[in-house]
Amino acid sequence: MFEEISKKLSELKKSAQVLSSMPSKYKDEALKLIAKKLDEYREDILLANAKDVENARQNGIKESLIDRLKLNDKRIDEMIQACETVVNLKDPVGEVVDSFVREDGLKIYKIRVPIGVIAIIYESRPNVTIETTTLALKSGNAILLKGGSDALNSNKAIVHAIKEALSLSTIPPSAVELVETTDRSVVDYIIKQNDFIDLVVPRGGKGLIDYVVKNATVPVLETGAGVCHIFVDESADIQKSLMVVDNAKTQRPGTCNAVETLLVHKNIANSFLPELKKLFDSKHVEIRGCEKTQKIIECIPATEEDWATEYLDYIISVKIVESIDEAIEHIRKYSTKHSESILTENYSNSMKFINSIDSAAVYVNASTRFTDGGQFGMGAEIGISTQKLHARGPVGLRELTSTKFIVFGDYHVRA
Amino acid sequence: MFEEISKKLSELKKSAQVLSSMPSKYKDEALKLIAKKLDEYREDILLANAKDVENARQNGIKESLIDRLKLNDKRIDEMIQACETVVNLKDPVGEVVDSFVREDGLKIYKIRVPIGVIAIIYESRPNVTIETTTLALKSGNAILLKGGSDALNSNKAIVHAIKEALSLSTIPPSAVELVETTDRSVVDYIIKQNDFIDLVVPRGGKGLIDYVVKNATVPVLETGAGVCHIFVDESADIQKSLMVVDNAKTQRPGTCNAVETLLVHKNIANSFLPELKKLFDSKHVEIRGCEKTQKIIECIPATEEDWATEYLDYIISVKIVESIDEAIEHIRKYSTKHSESILTENYSNSMKFINSIDSAAVYVNASTRFTDGGQFGMGAEIGISTQKLHARGPVGLRELTSTKFIVFGDYHVRA
Repeated sequence: MFEEISKKLSELKKSAQVLSSMPSKYKDEALKLIAKKLDEYREDILLANAKDVENARQNGIKESLIDRLKLNDKRIDEMIQACETVVNLKDPVGEVVDSFVREDGLKIYKIRVPIGVIAIIYESRPNVTIETTTLALKSGNAILLKGGSDALNSNKAIVHAIKEALSLSTIPPSAVELVETTDRSVVDYIIKQNDFIDLVVPRGGKGLIDYVVKNATVPVLETGAGVCHIFVDESADIQKSLMVVDNAKTQRPGTCNAVETLLVHKNIANSFLPELKKLFDSKHVEIRGCEKTQKIIECIPATEEDWATEYLDYIISVKIVESIDEAIEHIRKYSTKHSESILTENYSNSMKFINSIDSAAVYVNASTRFTDGGQFGMGAEIGISTQKLHARGPVGLRELTSTKFIVFGDYHVRA
Repeated sequence: MFEEISKKLSELKKSAQVLSSMPSKYKDEALKLIAKKLDEYREDILLANAKDVENARQNGIKESLIDRLKLNDKRIDEMIQACETVVNLKDPVGEVVDSFVREDGLKIYKIRVPIGVIAIIYESRPNVTIETTTLALKSGNAILLKGGSDALNSNKAIVHAIKEALSLSTIPPSAVELVETTDRSVVDYIIKQNDFIDLVVPRGGKGLIDYVVKNATVPVLETGAGVCHIFVDESADIQKSLMVVDNAKTQRPGTCNAVETLLVHKNIANSFLPELKKLFDSKHVEIRGCEKTQKIIECIPATEEDWATEYLDYIISVKIVESIDEAIEHIRKYSTKHSESILTENYSNSMKFINSIDSAAVYVNASTRFTDGGQFGMGAEIGISTQKLHARGPVGLRELTSTKFIVFGDYHVRA
């Protein structure tokens, strides 16, 4: 049934071997050609995308999703820019990450190598096709793309441009393959191809990610949701804290690193919350407060469900806590282990928070919005890992590599 | 049904929180107490083990397996020694592995943290109980032990000694839990406890490992079999190569890093193979050769199956190849990606081999027997990972850690 994909997987595996020891120069040339071809095929891509958008409208898809699907000249320019950004990143392949020279002279080096074949399963945004392809190729990996069915025409046109570019480069065009079948069981097929795929990355809603984590036999890199917390400790500077909370909530509410729950120390609540209320009223942020919060400011009562909700919207839940320990307990219970921040002037509390919170990124006196490959100096990312194995936090080029030991001897034998 | 384990899992999770930021000093004190208690409870452990051995004999278990199960004073001394080795290893927790200070002064550190709760599923050798427990505790992890049913009495006695030791230490005794049920479906239950277990490590035969990889929803660290290769290139020094091949095959044939297949360049075969035959006859190593090999030396004909077999015995398969490319092709087809070595005086071939072979350890002019945590300077290991995610090669203390980003700001907001 999946003969098309089975054939593509064999080709991907062969291409991965070619890519695995390819010097950066050739990979960068290919990325520049991709940028060029995206420009050349701009009209084709926009036409294909218009078809997807029309189909989506006919299928009654809601406008916010259509907006994610829709391409225009500006978005194509951004895709071209994304290729150039990746060209400028340092290739991690070959980097020596550890070394050990034995007493007997045997030299052991641990070096970065590509992972091999990476499969990305994602939803409607067609720019993900370019973001993930460029990062995969630069780190020496072949890539299987399974985009949303809604975006199939757009993705076909983009992958056509990519393959045209690769055919002029040293990278085999079969290093990038798109799954064209829209049969839903194809995901199940892909995530069990251990002989051909080294890593699967689900990007999208919780349903997709949970399905892949539960059913994959191929190793999974989980990029999860963010129910991020900020704890305003009793010693926090109120004016500065308001700025940080505002930034974490409203700078871009639809992102996984935006704050969703505010924990406020009881001793600062009376002075902090009225100011917060004023600020958030002016920004149309809805506050859902615990019982104690409701006694200080006018707000919607928070339910148990609120503490576990990633709003991705102009909504924030607020809870007053008795102590830093209660804040830590609350975070342990409800956090998705993405990003949490403490705002405090108390040294011991800052250290306690950092040591006790088990999340990908833990902040003192900063907005959670920084958890991002670009902000962390990694240049670009394919997502934020909330799992603990292999990669945690932003997943950039390095995180798309594995390692191997290379050992240089003089006919050494083990004693 | 698995109420016992469910309760233990809750306790493990709590203990992992306590362990996660515990200074090395307290962990080392606990390990020293474990060593002491193993000595104190020596008689109890040997008695329990005698019961296991008797049961195994009654169940008709073969002697080679009984030998793996059996403890004696020497083996208990080795377990005590293993604790002391781990005390002397550097604690990886807290190590800064990367850092980035932004232009705006925000300081981002990537530090090592414990993984959390690790489950080990293993077969009969009871010393694995100590090896894995000490490495897990030193790296700040709680551990769930699921040993073979054959060794249950021994493991109960060992874990009793461990818990007695922990009760005198800062580490909660519930940081180490043994699965006591022998119901086979318990493995299936364990490998799906994503809310309580962060990593599962299967140690044992291929059947167990494959089962866990296929069915686990918890991330798995695969420690696989080793069909290791040595390629004797045409320019290799014959006398030195004989020593390396001998070492790789006979120094300890039952290990995963022992060589199983020898690939010999056709231009050196006539001079190398008769010498090899002489050497291996004297050491009672059975040679299974390809057709061309059979024309040069007397040997058993190798079948297709031989190329894919991990003998773990005094047997070696030998194939004559036309070129280094044929050697690389053969390895790509049959290797389990553990350890491979080239013996050569040719620089370009050494580099080609290193770049083209996708295994955890790739050697030039050295025995494959070095692939081992101890030999690689890591002190100790819980196994050799043949997967590409998270850890590849020997899995020591560092590989039992994850990372998190800790970020220090001055009320920084994202622009």
